[in-house]
Order: sequence, then C-alpha cells, then structure tokens
Amino acid sequence: MPSYRAPVEDVLFLLNDVLGFHRHDNLAGFADASPDVVEAVLSEGGKLAEELLAPLNLSGDHEGCTRHADGSVTTPKGFKAAYDAYSAGGWMGLSVPEEFGGQGLPQTLNTAIQEFASSANLALAMYPGLTQGAVAALLVHGSDEQKKTYLPKMVEGAWTGTMNLTEPHCGTDLGLLKTKAVPNGDGSYALTGTKIFISAGEHDLSENIVHLVIARIEGAPAGTKGISLFVVPKFLVNADGSVGERNGVSCGSIEHKMGIHGNSTCVMNYDGAKGWLVGEANRGLNAMFVMMNEARLAVGVQGLGQSEVAYQNAVAYAKDRLQGRALTGAKAPDKAADPIIVHADVRRTLMQIRAFNEAARALVLWTALQADIVHRSQDAKERQAADDHMGLMTPVVKGVLTDKGFDNAVAAQQMFGGHGYIEEWGMSQFVRDARIAMIYEGANGIQAMDLIGRKLPKDGGRAMMTFLGEVQTFIKDHDEDETLKAFTGPLQAALNDLQGATMWFMQNAMAKPDNAGAGATDYMHLLGLVALGYMWARIAKAAAAKKQAENGAAERMEAKLVTGRFFMERMLPETAVRLTRIKAGAETTMALPVEAF
Amino acid sequence: MPSYRAPVEDVLFLLNDVLGFHRHDNLAGFADASPDVVEAVLSEGGKLAEELLAPLNLSGDHEGCTRHADGSVTTPKGFKAAYDAYSAGGWMGLSVPEEFGGQGLPQTLNTAIQEFASSANLALAMYPGLTQGAVAALLVHGSDEQKKTYLPKMVEGAWTGTMNLTEPHCGTDLGLLKTKAVPNGDGSYALTGTKIFISAGEHDLSENIVHLVIARIEGAPAGTKGISLFVVPKFLVNADGSVGERNGVSCGSIEHKMGIHGNSTCVMNYDGAKGWLVGEANRGLNAMFVMMNEARLAVGVQGLGQSEVAYQNAVAYAKDRLQGRALTGAKAPDKAADPIIVHADVRRTLMQIRAFNEAARALVLWTALQADIVHRSQDAKERQAADDHMGLMTPVVKGVLTDKGFDNAVAAQQMFGGHGYIEEWGMSQFVRDARIAMIYEGANGIQAMDLIGRKLPKDGGRAMMTFLGEVQTFIKDHDEDETLKAFTGPLQAALNDLQGATMWFMQNAMAKPDNAGAGATDYMHLLGLVALGYMWARIAKAAAAKKQAENGAAERMEAKLVTGRFFMERMLPETAVRLTRIKAGAETTMALPVEAF
Repeated sequence: MPSYRAPVEDVLFLLNDVLGFHRHDNLAGFADASPDVVEAVLSEGGKLAEELLAPLNLSGDHEGCTRHADGSVTTPKGFKAAYDAYSAGGWMGLSVPEEFGGQGLPQTLNTAIQEFASSANLALAMYPGLTQGAVAALLVHGSDEQKKTYLPKMVEGAWTGTMNLTEPHCGTDLGLLKTKAVPNGDGSYALTGTKIFISAGEHDLSENIVHLVIARIEGAPAGTKGISLFVVPKFLVNADGSVGERNGVSCGSIEHKMGIHGNSTCVMNYDGAKGWLVGEANRGLNAMFVMMNEARLAVGVQGLGQSEVAYQNAVAYAKDRLQGRALTGAKAPDKAADPIIVHADVRRTLMQIRAFNEAARALVLWTALQADIVHRSQDAKERQAADDHMGLMTPVVKGVLTDKGFDNAVAAQQMFGGHGYIEEWGMSQFVRDARIAMIYEGANGIQAMDLIGRKLPKDGGRAMMTFLGEVQTFIKDHDEDETLKAFTGPLQAALNDLQGATMWFMQNAMAKPDNAGAGATDYMHLLGLVALGYMWARIAKAAAAKKQAENGAAERMEAKLVTGRFFMERMLPETAVRLTRIKAGAETTMALPVEAF
Repeated sequence: MPSYRAPVEDVLFLLNDVLGFHRHDNLAGFADASPDVVEAVLSEGGKLAEELLAPLNLSGDHEGCTRHADGSVTTPKGFKAAYDAYSAGGWMGLSVPEEFGGQGLPQTLNTAIQEFASSANLALAMYPGLTQGAVAALLVHGSDEQKKTYLPKMVEGAWTGTMNLTEPHCGTDLGLLKTKAVPNGDGSYALTGTKIFISAGEHDLSENIVHLVIARIEGAPAGTKGISLFVVPKFLVNADGSVGERNGVSCGSIEHKMGIHGNSTCVMNYDGAKGWLVGEANRGLNAMFVMMNEARLAVGVQGLGQSEVAYQNAVAYAKDRLQGRALTGAKAPDKAADPIIVHADVRRTLMQIRAFNEAARALVLWTALQADIVHRSQDAKERQAADDHMGLMTPVVKGVLTDKGFDNAVAAQQMFGGHGYIEEWGMSQFVRDARIAMIYEGANGIQAMDLIGRKLPKDGGRAMMTFLGEVQTFIKDHDEDETLKAFTGPLQAALNDLQGATMWFMQNAMAKPDNAGAGATDYMHLLGLVALGYMWARIAKAAAAKKQAENGAAERMEAKLVTGRFFMERMLPETAVRLTRIKAGAETTMALPVEAF
C-alpha cells in the first residue's frame, strides 16, 4: 500500500528561513501563530493526514461512492469517521475568524495543511476543501444573517458546502446558464434547473449541505451580467438554527469518473428549491470569483500534493526494487541486483519531480502569504501589491502546478514498470486523481487565457512589471555571491525570455488577439518556470546561510542546493523553447479552415 | 460514444507519394501488393476497425475480463465474435508466408492495419497482436516441426499466442528469472514457476493458447546466459494436430489495471507444464528479442493509434461544443456561442496532436518498410542498411511515439473539460489505455538506455552516421527549393543539435557512463524530433508536388504543408532544450547520496 509522510520540516524551513513568515506579526492572527504554534499546527496536521486520511485513500478509490434509489449517496467505508475527526480537530476553521467558530490563524498555514490532506487523500480532502471555499464566499458576500446561519455550522463541520456552476451545455462560458430563479415574494427565490459535475453534491458526511448556486433571476439580462448567486441548503434551516424540512434539491445521479472515486460528483436537480440571494442581484459572478480564486489556489496545491505523494512512493520503490547493475559498477554486490535508484535515468526522474515539488511548495506558500496580506493588512499599498501578486500568480499556481503535478505523477508511476499500471500499488490512482486538477475550477487553457487576457494587461501591466522588477533586483543584489552564481545566471536568462515574451505580446497581440491565444499556454508555463526558478534562488540563499549557521542542518541544506542546481541546469532552460513558440505567433496555428480538421 | 475513422487516405499518400512503397516491387510479396491491392487491403482493414472493433471499445472497457473459479477467463461481450471475424478475414496472417496459411503481403501493410486496430480497440487488438508476435518468433527460431504444428493454427486464428517473460521479482532484468525447466527425457521439458503481467494469458477467444516462455534449464548458467525459450501450449497437441489433454499451465488471477480492461492480464502458474525448446538452449533471449523488436514497433504504433483516435474525437467535440466567442469576433453569430475550435489555444492543441500524428505515421511506415527489406531483400548491403535503420529507430518508435501518444491523449481529453474526466465520453479510456504502451515491451527509460548504450555505439556508430548523412543530404539537395525553406531551415538547426548531442556523448560518456544514462531519455526524444522533422520535410516535398499535379488534392496537400510548418515552428525547436539537458551531464543528477532521498 502506498505511504505518505507530510513534509512538515520543509514547510517550516520555507516559512521561517525563506519567506520570512514571522516578519508579518503585525497582521491579524499572525501574532497568535508563534513559531511554536506553527510547528504544532503543522505537526498535528501532518499526523492527521498520515494516520487518518492516507490509509483510506486506496480503499476509497476501489470502493467509490454509491447512490441509492432514494437519491442518497454513501461515501466509502471510513470516510465519515475520518471526516468527523477532521472537523472535531478544528481544521475546517483553521483560518476562519474566531467570531464564526474558527481559529483565525493565517491562511498560509491552512494552505500547508491543504497540501498534506490533498497528498494523503484527495477525494476525502475535497469535502472539507469545498466547504472552506463556500465559507470564504459567504464571509465576503453573505449578509450578516446568512453568516450567522451558516458559518458556525460549516466551520464546525456539521454542515458542508458546495459550488454549483456547471450545466450540461455550459462550463467555461457561464453566460449561457439556464437555471432560473423566481422570486417567492418572501425574500426567497425558487430555483429550477440542472447542475452537473457538482463535487460533494450529496453524501453522508454531514447533516446538511449548503449549496452555493448561480442562476438567472427571471427577467435578468442575458449573458454573464444576469447571473446571481444563491445559497440553497439541502435542508431548510429553522428559525432556531436547527435543520428543518427537505428542500427541493436532489442528486439525480453520480458520475463514473477516471479518478477521485471517493468524492461524489453529482448531477444536482433543482426543482423549485428555495434559495436566498448572496450579495447583489446580477453580480453573482463577482461573488463566485472570490470562491474561485481561493479554489484555484487550492487546486494548484492539489497538483503539488499528488506530485509529492507520488514522488515519495517512487523513491521508496526505487530504493527497494532490485534490477540491473549501476553503469559505474555494482553498488549492492551482496544482492542479486542493485536497487534501481542507482540508474541515472531513474535518478534523473526523481530529481526532476523533487526539484519541482520544493519550488512549487515555496511558490504556493508565498502566494498564500499574499492572500493573508490582502485580507489582513492595514496598509493599502501593501494590500495592493499583494493583490497584484495574487492575481498574477493564481492562474500560474493553478495551471502550472496541476499540469506538472500530473506529469510528475505519471513519471513516478513509470518507475514501477508494470506494477505502476495495476491498481494495487496505488500509483495509477495518483495519476487518475491528479488528472482532475487540470480540469476543474477552470481548465488550464482557461487559466492561461485569464493570465494573458486579464491579469497581464490589468492596471497597465503593473503586476508583471513589479514581478519582473523583484526578480531582477534579487539577481542584481546577489551578483557577487559565489554560491548563488549557479542560480542567478540561469535565472537571468529565463527572466530575459519572460521579458522578451511579454514585450512580444505587447507589440503583437493588441492588433491580432489570436497571437495572445496561440501563445497563452506557453506564456503561463514560461512565467511558472521563472517563478519557480526565483523560488529556487531564494531557497538557495536561505539554505547556504543555514548550512553555515546551523549544526545538523548541513546535509539537508546541501541537498537543497544540489536539487536547486538541477532545476537551474535542466528544467529552467525550457523557457527558451516556450519563447520560441510564443514568437511563432498565431498564423500557422489558425491557418487551416475548420473543414480541414 | 467515441467514433473512429481509419486514416486510409493518409496511409496511401505516405506509401505512394512519400515513401515510394512501389519501388520495392522486387521484394518477395511486394509484386502482389499492387496499388489496387494495397488500397483494397487498407480500405477493408479500415472498415473492420471502424465497424467491428471500435463499437466494442467503450463497452469492453466498462465490462472488463472476468476470471472464474476454475481459472477460465471470459472476455467482454462481443469480443469473441469480433475476434472470429478478424481471423476469418485472414488479417492475422496478412504478412505471414503463404506456406503457413498467410498471405505473404508486406509487413508494412500489416503495420498500417495494426494502427487502425489499435485506434479502434486496443484491448481487443492485443489478442491477435500478441499472436502475430509469437508467430514471428516461431518463424525465425522454431523447428520445422514446431512451425508445422503451431503456425497454421495460429495464422487462421484458431490458436492464439502469448509472450511470458516477467516474474514478480524481475521485469527489465530477465537475468534474475527463476522459472525452471527440467528435461523429461523425451525431448520435452517440465516448466515450473510463476509469470506475471501476461497479456492474453487466458481467455475464451481461441481453442488453444500457445505460450512462449523463457525459463532456466536445470544447471544452466546464472544470469542472461542461461535463459532458454520454450513453447508451452495450454492444451497439448495430438499427433494429428488436434487439441489434446490440458497442460500444467493455468491462470492464477487477473490483474486490476488502469486500462486495457478488455485484455486479460494474467498471473500464469506453470506446474510442471510440458514445454519444448525453441531454438538453442541458453539462447532464449536472442530468440525472444526477435519477438520483442516486432512487438516494440507494434507498441509504438499503439501510441500513435491512441493519439489518432483521441485527436479525431477531440476535433469532433471542438466543432460541436459551443462556448465563448472568438477573440477576433463571433464566428457563429446565429448561435449562442462559437464552437470552441475557433479559440487559438484549442486550435494549437489540435494542431500539435495532428502534426505529431502525421509525421509519426510516416516514421512508422518507413521503419516497417525497412523491416520488410531486412526480411525479404536479396541484397546484403540493402539488408544491412535496413537493419541499421531498424535498430536505431525501434527504441525511438517505441519510446517517443508512446510518450507523445499518451501526452496527446491527455491533451485531447483536456478539450472536453469535465466531460473528458467522466467515463461515458471515452476520452478517459484513451488516456488509460495509452498509458500501458509507455510501460510494456520495455519501459521507455529502457528504450532510451537501449538506444544510447547499444544501438548508438554499435558498429562504430554506423547507423547514426548513416541517418545523420541522409538527413543532411536531403537538406542540401533541397537548399534552393523555396517551398521547402520553411522545412529545411529548422531541420538543419535540429540536426545540428542532434549532432552536437551525439558528439557530446562520444566525448563524455565513455569515461563517465552516467553521463549517458542521465541524458538517455532526452537523447531518445531529440532523435525522435529530428526523425519526425525529417518525415515532415519529405511529406512537404511530396505534398507540394501533388498540390501542383493533381486536381482535387490541392486542399488536402495545402493542409499538410500548413501542419508541417506548425511542427517546424513550434515543435521541432524543442531539440535545443534537449541538447542543453544532455550537456548538463550527470554530475548534479547523481550528486545526492541515496539517503538524501
């Protein structure tokens, strides 16, 4: 059975030594997150993932969810108990304000825990994950009464949340949605329509399910300007806050999917279900976007999570499996063959995954820290800078980390040969589960279009200019540093490629927007590579210092420096081919008439 | 339900206009393959794939194989009838000599049919595919009596074949195998041991199953030099050729796999099963290699096959699915939204798959043609050149076509958004099925090591020098050709990268063999890119000529020229980053101690 160990030590290193987490003690909740508390939270969260969630991953995949004739859905054996323990531990509300029953700790910590949970059991982690997304949307856009009604119950885990956007004929293009909301005259609305692909839409983990649903109020404008957001509980809530009668929403069927079998993906039927407007009428997409940005970061973290757990299991296998001899002579002459980790092609694969994971984790935590600043800083300028960063990096974290996370799961599976292809080793599950993260919360092509079409040109390109400037300043500041030469040199080359691509779009995409579309995915990955390369440069700086300063850390820090050099030598240079493709433009891409396909 | 249309027209173009298939009429069997016959064979084979195999693909995946308590295995509904029709059509023996009941036609044609069958239904196509592999091995290494006993029955499809190599503790490193063969004193041997991952090991399609099994004769040397090949029929064969008593071989269980559910992957138990030596004692690996080379080409074709069928279905979806508006203004203003094929990022993805598929098909047919020359030419020099080509390109066809075939299936699935992740659309199956091709018949890392460790240095690098020379000559010969400038320029740059990498290995891998291992996979893909780029240059030459010469072909040929330019502009330049990685060498890759992982 696959195993998992939460990278607690690595998160602590990133927070303490690389990202300067504790410099932010002036932010609300950060003072409570003293080094001791942070370490305790991460250790406990790690233990939870390792001991409670991970053991149910393979069995949950095999068993899957079952829908019964009455529309109820049963989750796999053990999920309910694990979910209850997760809730009871207060994990759902880790970074939710204390007034709603949360602990008010930084979102950054919650993000680290999300990685652990996603690695250990993605299908199970999605139930609390979606609840956290719904909580985030209600916190920002819900009325005081809605907050009072729903949030405490959701934070304690008694009720879960969902997000209902997609319909059979519309996913990306929500302007096409058909679900109707008709005013009941008492302030509530009657919702009618069909939503598909609703994760955690129906299940047996909680006593109520709080659906956030987008729909069109009768008579509202067509397109995206007529979309409103509603809260639609599975069971109506009595005046005293208790669960009342069943609402007109039900699960019509569950999907048979490639992966995340333990999560129920439902077709949800709304038959005049009672719902209440969240935020303003016809401004539903804006409200939903709050939830979607949090969700997109969380999905990026899922990509990293699958990459990490697949890596760990590939390492274990590579140390154990005996096959062939090292090209440089037997390394285990007492055995029938050497463990396959001696082979350079195996080692290359492992290094590649590892070099991605460590930098991706840094990027995720850095971005989560910006989210905390956006929500908690008193300084408008600091908030704006953090918001710029979030806008720019959200599509990168979502798109790049899930694309590469999937690739890495595939590469880790490959280490196992035929054993990777059969289900009992669990590697197939990591691949199948990782696959969804490239699709949901906006398929990765949409992330790329969002980056290049919205985030990049926003405010005259301010966010990108700031990022380019920050990286350039880091390189200049460390120009004389011998240890960092192996990092700043390649980073400068990659940065030049990113600047070149950005410039090319400025000159060529205004008049011919397909030039942006044809290069969007390459640009997203190009920015991702530079961001990861920059993370490595910062990790290397911290590792070099810590290696000198601390006894006992030397080997671990040296390993980081080696892994970072691997990234710089072999992975970062991919920026060049990305730039070449971008500069090829859209002409050939768009040249064929549709009939030629 | 997914659909499939065999690319008959494209194969005909490649054979007739690009590869000069009919220039080989002097080879045995080629004179029979007149243009009319070739067209008829391909059309009929295409129809078979479209009408008989494809409709059973999704249902076969859902149902899978069932093992019963008595060890028998049932294949999915419809498989037996389809298999019977396949056999009755004479497809199994398409390129088998007529004396054994085959049609003696070129292997090249059989390879084209293999692509169609793999696209239509990989799990089903594997049953005849493995039989063809076993037939190939017996043709070369079997005794006259063995050929007489087994081949006619296998060619008519009454009996099927398998290949038994892997054991629980050894896959790649066959020297570790434990299955024992003890002489019975009557010329036969008693085989005892366990084989795993045996595709088509037990099923209900044929009246007998002919297992080719490697085992160690009692007292034989350890390692690969003590391996012998045996033929072990499921039912012993009576003197009159009829099926006799049951042999001591049985299916212990079937595996639960990520994909190819319609093919039974068996644990085979040999309990003193009666077997007969094929070829010389202790030379079993050599005999097996014959089968493995054919099988590796066939597996490369499977990668292409999945890429092609996934592409076709993605195109259909992209033309049909309405979502969003083109950046350049509405293309279907009468509809609620434009079909997604108008979006540049969607178009880029489709072009990328298509540009791979067409060149990969050319590479496959070119290589298959060399196989025909090796087996059928009277000219020793011509045979040697063809054999060199086969040796060099077999790992490339296997490794690159399956790696990219899988990537392409994933990219095609991505077009479908959430619909790609649920099983009913069939895109998930293409991904899951394509995944195995990267693993079996030697995992792709092994292909890369085979290329760089064996095929490249063989005969002083003669095969590679010939290939480099051929591509260089083509470029020089077409230097003045304006139409081909867009092809020869990028091809020269890629060729320089390949030469640079080859040179680098010559200078750096002898003393430090890990430098070869660390760069092996990149080198395999680098060679693959150049080979595909060369194919495109040759296709472009033929397309440009045909466009001028033939009325009615102009649009199709123009589409080829555009698709080829896309490959040259956006895909071929990847050679540069492959070269960078290779030149990074093994130092950083191998620097970490094993304990650091």
